[in-house]
Amino acid sequence: MGFVEMIRPRIERVNREIERVIDGEVPRLVEAMRHYPAAGGKRLRPVMALTACAAVGGDEERAMPFALALEMTHNFTLIHDDLMDKDAVRRGRPAVHIIYDEATAINAGDAMFARSFYLLTKLDVPDPVLRTILEDFSMMVQGIAEGQQMDMDFESRREVTEEEYMVMVEKKTALMFKTAAKGGALIGRGTEEEISALDEYGRLLGIGFQIWDDLLDLQADEKVLGKPVGSDIKNGKKTLSAVWALNHLEGEQREAFLRAFGNAEADEETVAKAIEAMREGGAIEYATRRAEEYAEKSRRLLGVLRDGPDKEILLAAVDFMVKREK
Amino acid sequence: MGFVEMIRPRIERVNREIERVIDGEVPRLVEAMRHYPAAGGKRLRPVMALTACAAVGGDEERAMPFALALEMTHNFTLIHDDLMDKDAVRRGRPAVHIIYDEATAINAGDAMFARSFYLLTKLDVPDPVLRTILEDFSMMVQGIAEGQQMDMDFESRREVTEEEYMVMVEKKTALMFKTAAKGGALIGRGTEEEISALDEYGRLLGIGFQIWDDLLDLQADEKVLGKPVGSDIKNGKKTLSAVWALNHLEGEQREAFLRAFGNAEADEETVAKAIEAMREGGAIEYATRRAEEYAEKSRRLLGVLRDGPDKEILLAAVDFMVKREK
Repeated sequence: MGFVEMIRPRIERVNREIERVIDGEVPRLVEAMRHYPAAGGKRLRPVMALTACAAVGGDEERAMPFALALEMTHNFTLIHDDLMDKDAVRRGRPAVHIIYDEATAINAGDAMFARSFYLLTKLDVPDPVLRTILEDFSMMVQGIAEGQQMDMDFESRREVTEEEYMVMVEKKTALMFKTAAKGGALIGRGTEEEISALDEYGRLLGIGFQIWDDLLDLQADEKVLGKPVGSDIKNGKKTLSAVWALNHLEGEQREAFLRAFGNAEADEETVAKAIEAMREGGAIEYATRRAEEYAEKSRRLLGVLRDGPDKEILLAAVDFMVKREK
Repeated sequence: MGFVEMIRPRIERVNREIERVIDGEVPRLVEAMRHYPAAGGKRLRPVMALTACAAVGGDEERAMPFALALEMTHNFTLIHDDLMDKDAVRRGRPAVHIIYDEATAINAGDAMFARSFYLLTKLDVPDPVLRTILEDFSMMVQGIAEGQQMDMDFESRREVTEEEYMVMVEKKTALMFKTAAKGGALIGRGTEEEISALDEYGRLLGIGFQIWDDLLDLQADEKVLGKPVGSDIKNGKKTLSAVWALNHLEGEQREAFLRAFGNAEADEETVAKAIEAMREGGAIEYATRRAEEYAEKSRRLLGVLRDGPDKEILLAAVDFMVKREK
């Protein structure tokens, strides 16, 4: 059974609730708020929270407001990010700022963020747990904003170190998986050892996930990817393989890479040659190895959990998120 | 002693703390977050929270994280509103989206909102109080987004009823004063009667404040106002007096009003004639009377409080906020 099949029941539970909890008194705003969540998706973040809760022996029903708050906040950040990055399409549909307008996109994101916190106040957990979850959640959202800011600042910089890239990815992507896994374990009343293992599991898996996701852009088929191969290269996006290439490629390989990197006019052949140079020079191998290391470390942390179907799902999540089809 | 002098010690305490609590790991983002709060202001919302706490006999030091969260959230909504409304100037300085860029303005607002919730988790209050405050706070922010959305939607509509205007003002402006006064009383462990009186006091005062603020645009001197007299008229802003004029003026008065309303090209004389028509037709008198009614009702609610300097401040706040200099 594939990973998505394993988590199907949880995906469906999230789907049943998410549109209901996204509500308000101004119809146009509620529509804009529901636009992305209604388009579906694999609900990786809420599913991780529910699974972590169950994996430590908790009642995952209690983690549901937390899981829904995560999914809502994830979608709020997508709305604002698409506006900031001027991306017009998301999940095959027009972005919120396109189908409505920019002001409505800003407002819809703000309202979803507010509503996420409202949901968290409904958590049926002891108060010290509630305070920890609220603290983690608010630090997470600030961290995501910081990661997005770093990502944008990188665009206009010639050089970015690998360390800077790692900080950015940790904030922009990994914090949410970390918060999901830790929060699920907290709500499920896991032991301290379980909570801290799942916290770190989410963080490492999130980093591996982003590195791998960026690699897909270089390797996948346009049909699978939903966008042209190498578009990150043309956009000059500072992914791990690009950062490595910038800092390590030399001679002709470097020239071939730089001809396409950040060059919106680069044709297909120029992009293909840049990717070839990255491959031959070792950039893709390097990033692949790093992603695999993060995956392996995250997998090992699950050793503290009792065996069972939820542990299997958390293990399968690693393979799915870091070794998805090219 | 004038109102501002009465609240000066509290203004200064807020000023001492606000920049310190606005912090993060990405310098450019922190700068953008501090840009509006650093420009000063009367800190009406945090001062109201601190005063309400003291007025019910509480230790206002305990309300400080709540007061700072209010001021931070107020400033976050200003950043996003200025971007949505394309306003380039705020408190005599370039708006955040002008001095930085639009993406940074979106991000800075999001991060300030997150940080406001982080501050709330530090409140030293019993847990049922914490949950109520978090719930009110999140509903408040969603309500502000809804009010802003209604305000924008009104711009493109020919007709707006007075009832719709009242709902919009209640969300966009009054909710924050309501939440401030109620929250202060909750943290100060006021009686149920005091808490609900201050809740309603803040709501009514907030409505009166906005009606009065809109009237200033028609009456003040350009130098006092910091923008040309009647600019709301030219922008077609649906203020209470404009809504009343649209729904009640007839004949020549109506024509004089419509020649300037929503007409960006209207010259000074056309605007002056429109304001004259509003005055003669009774629109300004009507809005003034409504503002005074809200002020009077809010004042009366303070009857439940024990006499003392904090009650005096809350009374003086009404005069200041609804009868400020024209």
